[in-house]
Amino acid sequence: MRVRDVRFPTSRTLDGSDAMNPDPDYSAAYVTLVTDGGTEGHGFAFTIGRGNDVCVAAIESLRSYVVGSDLDGLDLGEFSRRLTHDSQLRWLGPEKGVMHLAAAALINAAWDLAARRAGLPVWRLLSGFSPQQLVDFVDWRYLTDALTPAAAVDLLTDAFPGRGTRTAQIAAEGYPAYTTSAGWLGYDDAKVTRLAREAVDGGFDMIKLKVGADLADDLRRFRAARTAVGPGIHIAVDANQRWDVPDAIDWMRELAPLDPYWIEEPTSPDDILGHAAIRAGLRTAGPSGGPIRVATGEHVHNRVMFKQLLQADAIDVVQIDACRVAGVNENLAILLLAAAYGKPVCPHAGGVGLCEVVQHLSFFDYVAVSGELSGRRIEFVDHLHEHFVDPVSIVKGRYAAPTRPGFSAEIHPEALSRFAYPSGAEWA
Amino acid sequence: MRVRDVRFPTSRTLDGSDAMNPDPDYSAAYVTLVTDGGTEGHGFAFTIGRGNDVCVAAIESLRSYVVGSDLDGLDLGEFSRRLTHDSQLRWLGPEKGVMHLAAAALINAAWDLAARRAGLPVWRLLSGFSPQQLVDFVDWRYLTDALTPAAAVDLLTDAFPGRGTRTAQIAAEGYPAYTTSAGWLGYDDAKVTRLAREAVDGGFDMIKLKVGADLADDLRRFRAARTAVGPGIHIAVDANQRWDVPDAIDWMRELAPLDPYWIEEPTSPDDILGHAAIRAGLRTAGPSGGPIRVATGEHVHNRVMFKQLLQADAIDVVQIDACRVAGVNENLAILLLAAAYGKPVCPHAGGVGLCEVVQHLSFFDYVAVSGELSGRRIEFVDHLHEHFVDPVSIVKGRYAAPTRPGFSAEIHPEALSRFAYPSGAEWA
Repeated sequence: MRVRDVRFPTSRTLDGSDAMNPDPDYSAAYVTLVTDGGTEGHGFAFTIGRGNDVCVAAIESLRSYVVGSDLDGLDLGEFSRRLTHDSQLRWLGPEKGVMHLAAAALINAAWDLAARRAGLPVWRLLSGFSPQQLVDFVDWRYLTDALTPAAAVDLLTDAFPGRGTRTAQIAAEGYPAYTTSAGWLGYDDAKVTRLAREAVDGGFDMIKLKVGADLADDLRRFRAARTAVGPGIHIAVDANQRWDVPDAIDWMRELAPLDPYWIEEPTSPDDILGHAAIRAGLRTAGPSGGPIRVATGEHVHNRVMFKQLLQADAIDVVQIDACRVAGVNENLAILLLAAAYGKPVCPHAGGVGLCEVVQHLSFFDYVAVSGELSGRRIEFVDHLHEHFVDPVSIVKGRYAAPTRPGFSAEIHPEALSRFAYPSGAEWA
Repeated sequence: MRVRDVRFPTSRTLDGSDAMNPDPDYSAAYVTLVTDGGTEGHGFAFTIGRGNDVCVAAIESLRSYVVGSDLDGLDLGEFSRRLTHDSQLRWLGPEKGVMHLAAAALINAAWDLAARRAGLPVWRLLSGFSPQQLVDFVDWRYLTDALTPAAAVDLLTDAFPGRGTRTAQIAAEGYPAYTTSAGWLGYDDAKVTRLAREAVDGGFDMIKLKVGADLADDLRRFRAARTAVGPGIHIAVDANQRWDVPDAIDWMRELAPLDPYWIEEPTSPDDILGHAAIRAGLRTAGPSGGPIRVATGEHVHNRVMFKQLLQADAIDVVQIDACRVAGVNENLAILLLAAAYGKPVCPHAGGVGLCEVVQHLSFFDYVAVSGELSGRRIEFVDHLHEHFVDPVSIVKGRYAAPTRPGFSAEIHPEALSRFAYPSGAEWA
């Protein structure tokens, strides 16, 4: 196991700027699993700069659970539980924050390794498991009041017969995307207008804008974007946790005439009841008296929180993140919960490599879990892909199906070296 | 700022063992703030062993927010927000897990320092602030749907006239306690029986037992304890997050004839709706058809979670922890919320120094916030106090009021040296 602190100086151009994160340096606590056979597994925790070193330390604290594992006997369900259930390390969460980001990096690296050994992209590897095998990958603790393993097997069994058809279809057509690249808070109106037009010209039917710092600015930028793309294109807005509950409702009522497709992260990601209150407060606030959707998830720290967001009917859109919860296994739990509650999953992406990794989960979800594309899109943000060995490919507003073995998580060695923090050429 | 990794080998005697934590080594990521004037401030994150080094790294990551501060101009509200709102570090939570434990250590150390400079124990320092000053120490973000700063000022103003009387009373009489020392899961029945009798003989009217690993064992141990202490003594039970929601209800119905005073941490600390369901499921489960109370808090990671536990009426007892949330300031928010919702606060303690520190918050709560003792007790666990410069003093089942300036958080230099990990004499 090798761990690296890698940081990209994105704050220099305000890429990624929003109401809570004015100057992120997109970073990865990057882990490589090295094996006797030569195959490697790659994974990472995504951070926005300071604290990336704390994630590196957290990954190191899990070393004894990783190094020396016998690959041939490796059960990825057991491996995942091993990393999240050390009784002493669990005290630091449980199952949240830095330790959970560390577990995610390692669990995803193990899946990358398993998929490379199988010669398949992760989404195809996952799509080949039986319903019972998939259910056995999940840690069911704390979930059974909402979904039992048996009910999950039933759900997956119902979806089983269509897997072949859907695999062929999604491999040919790709998965719908939307783009956030037009709407960072640090961009001026002219840049937003230009990028919004380019997005629509490129085939996207949905874009997203950052809001929440200043209402007058938000109205002006939203109007500019709406004028640029016209009424037929979805425009979601994202407040990045900026508001208290009453503020979120008031602010969104002001933006409502511009037809926001959803409001993302209106308040604290911990506030399940707050999201439910906001959703209720916006139920008839849309321009034709319809609802404004509520979305969250990129900072929702584990399956227990997603469970409650669904139980409380607090959100309309489930935004999984490939690296926030404990990797593939916990995201599998969340995909199953979302399917059981009939809510669409629109993954959070961007950052460093989040598009690359999370696309596999959405392709798999369509093939083997929800079987649905309606209302589903993967976020796309157009930066840092050039550093990846198997970067995403966007064709006419859709993610093309990954074809290379693994999880598309590997960063080029030259980039790992150049952006190493603090010793790499970019930082030295 | 100096940070140390200090670990006590408590796993050798199974002190502190429970259904989720079979072999804790009680530990502290211990921070000392050194000032030009010579006065020091002491604080710590409490952990149970592995991962204490990750907390040390997290405290180090906050160094630039601490070192160089001008003490005379230091606003402890601003200082607290500074440590929890770095936009890049916030990504690692927000406000949870390792980074929040680190913030707690530093914020509590700053309060220790401020109290020493004022020549007062922290509870008396806090009790001397005006309602508006206290409210200004709190980060109100995400709270205003449940409690506004203005309503908090009103609440504190209502309690203001009685402060002097209550200060005199509590300084003379001490604060009620209960003890967990009798009930660790690793203790056999004879030890539980002996320690339970000793607790009652020593003046405690409440003890707590660990449960949740095996129902037959729990019934046998609970019966032994009940026989030892008789029907007039409260016996709470603590499952340390062991159960799913349906299991918690079933298991507690089995224990109900033995009259459990409360069930603590029945399930995931993140599961607000789960606690509400368990509480509803146990509403008439007590031996006379009354409720079995539900308690949680030691792992509830911030004020937003406590807010929801209160909004959902999910718990009967609010268990603050001095070092889990972001120190004095966030605990002040939680005390205010608990008072506003009329719920008693019974702090979690034990570990390393948690008794020493949290007692100040309960004394202050009685004097200036809730003005109530009914249903309130501070947990007491009888180990590791000998390592503290200003250890707690228990007199006839009550905490004696701390009298020395500061937060009672300082560990003797000899102990810091002997238990330093991994280089100290105890570990080398």
